[in-house]
Amino acid sequence: MSFDIRNYLDKRKEIVDRALWEYLPPDEAKTKLQQSIVYSIHPGGKRLRPVLCLAASELICGSHKNALPAACAVEMIHTYSIIHDDLPSMDDDDTRRGKPANHRVFGEAVATLAGDALLTDAFSLMTEKLLKQGVSPELILRVVSVISEAAGSKGMVLGQAFDLEMDEGEHLSVNEISNTYLMKTAKMIEASVLSGAMLAGAGEEELLRLKSYSEKIGIAFQIKDDILDVTGSDDTAQESREKAGAKKHTYVSVMEIQASKAKVSELTNQAIVELESFPKDPNPLREIAVWLREREE
Amino acid sequence: MSFDIRNYLDKRKEIVDRALWEYLPPDEAKTKLQQSIVYSIHPGGKRLRPVLCLAASELICGSHKNALPAACAVEMIHTYSIIHDDLPSMDDDDTRRGKPANHRVFGEAVATLAGDALLTDAFSLMTEKLLKQGVSPELILRVVSVISEAAGSKGMVLGQAFDLEMDEGEHLSVNEISNTYLMKTAKMIEASVLSGAMLAGAGEEELLRLKSYSEKIGIAFQIKDDILDVTGSDDTAQESREKAGAKKHTYVSVMEIQASKAKVSELTNQAIVELESFPKDPNPLREIAVWLREREE
Repeated sequence: MSFDIRNYLDKRKEIVDRALWEYLPPDEAKTKLQQSIVYSIHPGGKRLRPVLCLAASELICGSHKNALPAACAVEMIHTYSIIHDDLPSMDDDDTRRGKPANHRVFGEAVATLAGDALLTDAFSLMTEKLLKQGVSPELILRVVSVISEAAGSKGMVLGQAFDLEMDEGEHLSVNEISNTYLMKTAKMIEASVLSGAMLAGAGEEELLRLKSYSEKIGIAFQIKDDILDVTGSDDTAQESREKAGAKKHTYVSVMEIQASKAKVSELTNQAIVELESFPKDPNPLREIAVWLREREE
Repeated sequence: MSFDIRNYLDKRKEIVDRALWEYLPPDEAKTKLQQSIVYSIHPGGKRLRPVLCLAASELICGSHKNALPAACAVEMIHTYSIIHDDLPSMDDDDTRRGKPANHRVFGEAVATLAGDALLTDAFSLMTEKLLKQGVSPELILRVVSVISEAAGSKGMVLGQAFDLEMDEGEHLSVNEISNTYLMKTAKMIEASVLSGAMLAGAGEEELLRLKSYSEKIGIAFQIKDDILDVTGSDDTAQESREKAGAKKHTYVSVMEIQASKAKVSELTNQAIVELESFPKDPNPLREIAVWLREREE
């Protein structure tokens, strides 16, 4: 019987949604700041990063219980990053996930602060909940390190800074573009997978394989986004195409569609190879990689 | 012989400056993002928060060695907060510490990212350095909690959101203004003092007294800022007075100068009382409180 990835994703997304609802309850959002935070965190999108965190944990120990607070933290950090990325001074996006961008509803100042709060609270919430679940302080600190390094000036923020320069600058090589995607997108996907695996007790060898898996699906994910921006038929793609006039460099603009698709397939296959020889069922992580390659939005 | 507070502050500031120089070396700032980060972190201002962190540690154990990474982290978080506060959508300040604000030099997008990076890196740097110094993971986690809670949506960021509303909204009571100052300023001053004391091994009773001390000097610090904005003669005060036309509510606008000065003195005296009965020399923390009350800039 084949593995039902849609069912798996729905179930895990539900678990993440419920935990985030508990951590950041919408009905307790009294101030404008809190309303701005819950506006972007609920209902959210695919919840890709937290689902990867849970799936990696399950791959190692069969359970995702310990990983859940880390899964919520990476989603909070992802949400902060899209609130800030959408700001007029950054990508200047008016919509996000089919509704007005945070700053279009709450104003730039509150949106900036909501992002700041989500980033900061990710660390306090995660440490508090993991301690309460009895996870060892050593392990919690390791997870804090992995996530903060992936998100900071040597990871996601650097990637976003590179991305801004790509909009302006001179011609970039395909390696420079791949490196930007590694920083901007893959590092946090990697931190999601590794934190889940660490909290499940993964060994160093397993972590190395999962690091390789997640870097590859992370870069493939971003290239796939570029492809969908060009080939997609929905409003977002339309909007992206209009913006592409200003934005010079993406993987697709340098490599053409066919070569880009081939690269996504190659990276996905390489990622899946890394999942061999784990003791538990690798189906979820494998099928997530395939789903990301095949997705149409 | 009286305690030489100026000499104490200079020496401790030098220690903080040197550590921050080592953590964020200006000559290794190759990318625009890194240049934006070091532009705001060096040379810095009074370094009040990190100096308080070191002084609190010395009060408990006579040394500030373990506290130094936490001191740098609170300064990085303070620096992120002023970069974001100066943005056009927030306080819209063109200058900071006698030079152009970060966003005036690097643009709004890079300034936003530099703030994001400083906030995130504060957590990774602090955990890495404290672990290397042999501090117990339990204690490091406690410090991460104290600092992230003070900085997040129930602390500094909430205070900044309240502050924005003060610029717009209806009449505020003196209690509402004090509460904003507690969130916006005093919480991070409290986290600076408490993290230093915790890393020096303070007991719960000592932490409670220091919490009270730092809340009081934190609120007094912000009221003193309001007073200087009105009475000061330098360019900053001039600029602040011009802005005050738009900005309706400060402590001084509600309470008048004399009552505000009396409040600063009262809070300072109450703070100093909390320093009685510590085994080590309370002179540094006491004289910092006095210096903050007396300062002219």
